[in-house]
Amino acid sequence: MEKFSFELITTDGRARRGRITTPHGIVETPVFMPVGTAGTVKATTPEELIAAGTEIILGNTYHLYLRPGMEVIERAGGLHKFMHWDKPILTDSGGYQVFSLAQAKNSLVKIKEDGVEFRSYKDGSKHMFTPEDVIKYQLTIGSDIMMPLDYCPSAEASHDEIEKAVDITSKWFKKAWGYYADLPVEETEGHALFAIVQGGIHADLRQKSFSELSEYPVAGFSIGGVANAGESKEKQLAALESTLPLLPSNKPRYLMGVGEPEDLLIGIERGVDMFDCVTPTRLGRHGSVWTRKGKINLHNAELKNDFTPIDSTCDCYTCQNYSRAYVAHLIREDEILGARLATLHNLRFLIHLVTDAREAIEKGTFLSYKDSFLKEYKVK
Amino acid sequence: MEKFSFELITTDGRARRGRITTPHGIVETPVFMPVGTAGTVKATTPEELIAAGTEIILGNTYHLYLRPGMEVIERAGGLHKFMHWDKPILTDSGGYQVFSLAQAKNSLVKIKEDGVEFRSYKDGSKHMFTPEDVIKYQLTIGSDIMMPLDYCPSAEASHDEIEKAVDITSKWFKKAWGYYADLPVEETEGHALFAIVQGGIHADLRQKSFSELSEYPVAGFSIGGVANAGESKEKQLAALESTLPLLPSNKPRYLMGVGEPEDLLIGIERGVDMFDCVTPTRLGRHGSVWTRKGKINLHNAELKNDFTPIDSTCDCYTCQNYSRAYVAHLIREDEILGARLATLHNLRFLIHLVTDAREAIEKGTFLSYKDSFLKEYKVK
Repeated sequence: MEKFSFELITTDGRARRGRITTPHGIVETPVFMPVGTAGTVKATTPEELIAAGTEIILGNTYHLYLRPGMEVIERAGGLHKFMHWDKPILTDSGGYQVFSLAQAKNSLVKIKEDGVEFRSYKDGSKHMFTPEDVIKYQLTIGSDIMMPLDYCPSAEASHDEIEKAVDITSKWFKKAWGYYADLPVEETEGHALFAIVQGGIHADLRQKSFSELSEYPVAGFSIGGVANAGESKEKQLAALESTLPLLPSNKPRYLMGVGEPEDLLIGIERGVDMFDCVTPTRLGRHGSVWTRKGKINLHNAELKNDFTPIDSTCDCYTCQNYSRAYVAHLIREDEILGARLATLHNLRFLIHLVTDAREAIEKGTFLSYKDSFLKEYKVK
Repeated sequence: MEKFSFELITTDGRARRGRITTPHGIVETPVFMPVGTAGTVKATTPEELIAAGTEIILGNTYHLYLRPGMEVIERAGGLHKFMHWDKPILTDSGGYQVFSLAQAKNSLVKIKEDGVEFRSYKDGSKHMFTPEDVIKYQLTIGSDIMMPLDYCPSAEASHDEIEKAVDITSKWFKKAWGYYADLPVEETEGHALFAIVQGGIHADLRQKSFSELSEYPVAGFSIGGVANAGESKEKQLAALESTLPLLPSNKPRYLMGVGEPEDLLIGIERGVDMFDCVTPTRLGRHGSVWTRKGKINLHNAELKNDFTPIDSTCDCYTCQNYSRAYVAHLIREDEILGARLATLHNLRFLIHLVTDAREAIEKGTFLSYKDSFLKEYKVK
């Protein structure tokens, strides 16, 4: 089994063109990773994901732990076999879900030095995640790239609360790394562990978080708490800007939960290598699709008689075979095929965007690529 | 454009092996036709249907008339182009839906000599279908095999009511045929018209219905009102038994709305050529799948750790790539992929059943094929 490695191939300004090697294959960066929360990238098959250019998908420890449960995943021989996907998988630790789903359900989460106690968003049952547990679970899943348990407070949290969250995240990481590093090499080889830099919108806390985590020889750095860093894009950008310069150039940088086309370009420009987000699948299921000119809503009555493809420049299965009128009809009728076709298009759209970005970085023309995309693309 | 034709290739007892030729391709019979009510066989793409062995699908005039509406279908250049399906399409007239959906919604339907007035099951808006209209709509759809407007009363209707329904169906058919036969041949060529024999469970009414319809040189005969002929399988079988001997051997016989594995075999044994039903898609979406040993419910807790395929003898995409445990997990989590995988398996299962039946008829071994299938298959 080949181990994890990262190669920085070239740069264009701060934008980076890299390559991640994992036991399940190579991932060219910048990369967009479709999210497969519960062991399926919603509405798609692995073959369709590959046809759309997917190189790596994201799984979620929180969801997989609750359903189908670790016993099933273990008996299946890991998530790759369970879900018929043999390319790389990155797994989130579940930290983010423990907190965000608890908030959504108004249920209490108990933060302790040795982990977090929470109730299942499914049935209210009580559970505990320790930093060691989530590493163990991700090894059971067979994840190629693992995330440590982290504490990501809400965007409204005070500086003090976020500082406390950074401290807990660092303490938890120490335990996670200790557990991981002590395991026999056969058990961890090919299962890389990243650290997650938190700190909200506060540059001093981002600095503190990074410096505490930088002691460990991690495989890469994730940037957490940006997608929810306050309401404004400005604050998100500030959080990103205060973190990226800290990170070493020889390791991949993963901006968690970011996935609108314009945000990918902003991140790539500043040196982000990896992105994930539920936007392409979630928007698709609800009938929103991206085009070169901006996002369109398939419920729009104007599309009823529009027999052009969703995006005439797109090479996806949907645009090659179906009209806006047809996909809009399916979405209006709540037909599963509508969700499928819109999802596939959106995934291909984002993946096309990042593969075009790679090419531009190689040619040293990333900024003009970005400008020309954004000139045509109307952000709503 | 090649016209419609039917060839009876061979028989085995009363079982028939035939071939229908249409402008969109050949259909070997006996055939099972997946139902694509609203311009999509729920949860599938055309490519997947073809991979599952589908030769012809069914569309529904009632649904397509309401959504997306005939104007959209016309502008799209017909249903084949609209939905990216270039094999044959059979369309139901909408008669059955007008009555069954009105019953389900407790809304009134007004039967008149010149047609039926009804309210949309979608928005309650008022509409009228005449026998001429539904032919016109099916020509707009571009259907390869069209059904005339028929009146199919509920299974509880009295002999008198069903007799009245037979009379109306015959009167409507006269109008439908008149309209169809008077059109220029360029407009109707390649769009075959069947007649629908009604009469409930009453042999005398089946006889009456057939003799009134047999005056016309129709392309084939449909047997309506069997799938809903009373609650019992015995009554359904009696309705079928009283109709089939009436029908000419040189035309295809289509048993409407029948689709459990055992019912297909019963129908084939008695000389039915064509079947359609929503069972494979509807059952699949709800997590019921067929196996050689009988139907299983994927919600069954026993399947949580069952890593065998749904049916180990099945060559479908689902059984080749996924376990019961995985599909059951998806169904429990209400994941779209679960509905997709269960649907594809069920479609392939029924299509496999009829293709095996064809082979057995050719070999003159249909009865032993049927017995050996039913010996293993437990009907619930």
